Amino acid sequence: MQPTTSAEALKRLNYIDGHLGGIRRMIEEDTYCVDVLKQTYAVRRAIEKLEALLLDGHLHTCVVEGVRDGRDDQVIGELLELYALANK
Amino acid sequence: MQPTTSAEALKRLNYIDGHLGGIRRMIEEDTYCVDVLKQTYAVRRAIEKLEALLLDGHLHTCVVEGVRDGRDDQVIGELLELYALANK
Amino acid sequence: MQPTTSAEALKRLNYIDGHLGGIRRMIEEDTYCVDVLKQTYAVRRAIEKLEALLLDGHLHTCVVEGVRDGRDDQVIGELLELYALANK
Amino acid sequence: MQPTTSAEALKRLNYIDGHLGGIRRMIEEDTYCVDVLKQTYAVRRAIEKLEALLLDGHLHTCVVEGVRDGRDDQVIGELLELYALANK
Repeated sequence: MQPTTSAEALKRLNYIDGHLGGIRRMIEEDTYCVDVLKQTYAVRRAIEKLEALLLDGHLHTCVVEGVRDGRDDQVIGELLELYALANK
Repeated sequence: MQPTTSAEALKRLNYIDGHLGGIRRMIEEDTYCVDVLKQTYAVRRAIEKLEALLLDGHLHTCVVEGVRDGRDDQVIGELLELYALANK
Repeated sequence: MQPTTSAEALKRLNYIDGHLGGIRRMIEEDTYCVDVLKQTYAVRRAIEKLEALLLDGHLHTCVVEGVRDGRDDQVIGELLELYALANK
Repeated sequence: MQPTTSAEALKRLNYIDGHLGGIRRMIEEDTYCVDVLKQTYAVRRAIEKLEALLLDGHLHTCVVEGVRDGRDDQVIGELLELYALANK
């Protein structure tokens, strides 16, 4: 992973951690479930953004190198596996 | 698109069409909404499978050629755009 | 289903049908896969809107009646089953 | 929220926290992006299970009470808002 990608990914993980801490407090303080659920959807969105960042880095580095090295089938197989997981 | 991919894609479109025709009849005959919704989720799944097929063909042809021709940024940019649309 | 809901649902099904016909032509004319995929994502969105419409009608009629008639467990069980299918 | 629901929700939050800690280490140790992404998808799934748990509790308590108290429009409006957020 490029250093800029991993630095940005760790920053996003910190944000997600903080958000989950907020959800924990909401549950402990018996907040209205609808308001808790709105926050869990926001966390899902934040994780999807982290995934997009990791995928961006992966395509620009490992996938391009893989194709140039003739390992098309491997890198493409991995991408399709990820796509299936993302839609499951 | 490879001829085998487009033949398979058209077959899947026929299946989706037939499924939607069934949903239309269910609505016209005032079927219980829960049963109609189960069918619309099945159609969504069928469309996701069609997408996976198209993406598979695209990666193995246009993306590999694009990277070999040095058009990495273009083909990767398109993939990330599709990923964002798929998760929207 | 309320007549206004089913009329609106059939209108949306017509729109989805037309959209799928456009995708069929794109595949037959060998359109660039990325452009085809953008259209399939648009169809997925249209189906999700149809689902939201059906769910809206279902909640305002069958669910409210079910709860008033003491069939809470049945109508809630169905909603949770639909939620699981929608997220699968 | 019922005490059993919130206890279970906090247990799931602990699990998600632990999982995110594992992803952080993977990024710090420069693990192959594909393996990191597989883990982020697993976290997304875990969050969706937490959401299903919260929704289950919400339907069985606040929604049933709301309908019995004649506040149908409020509780149903909230459910539709959550559905739209879950599919965004």
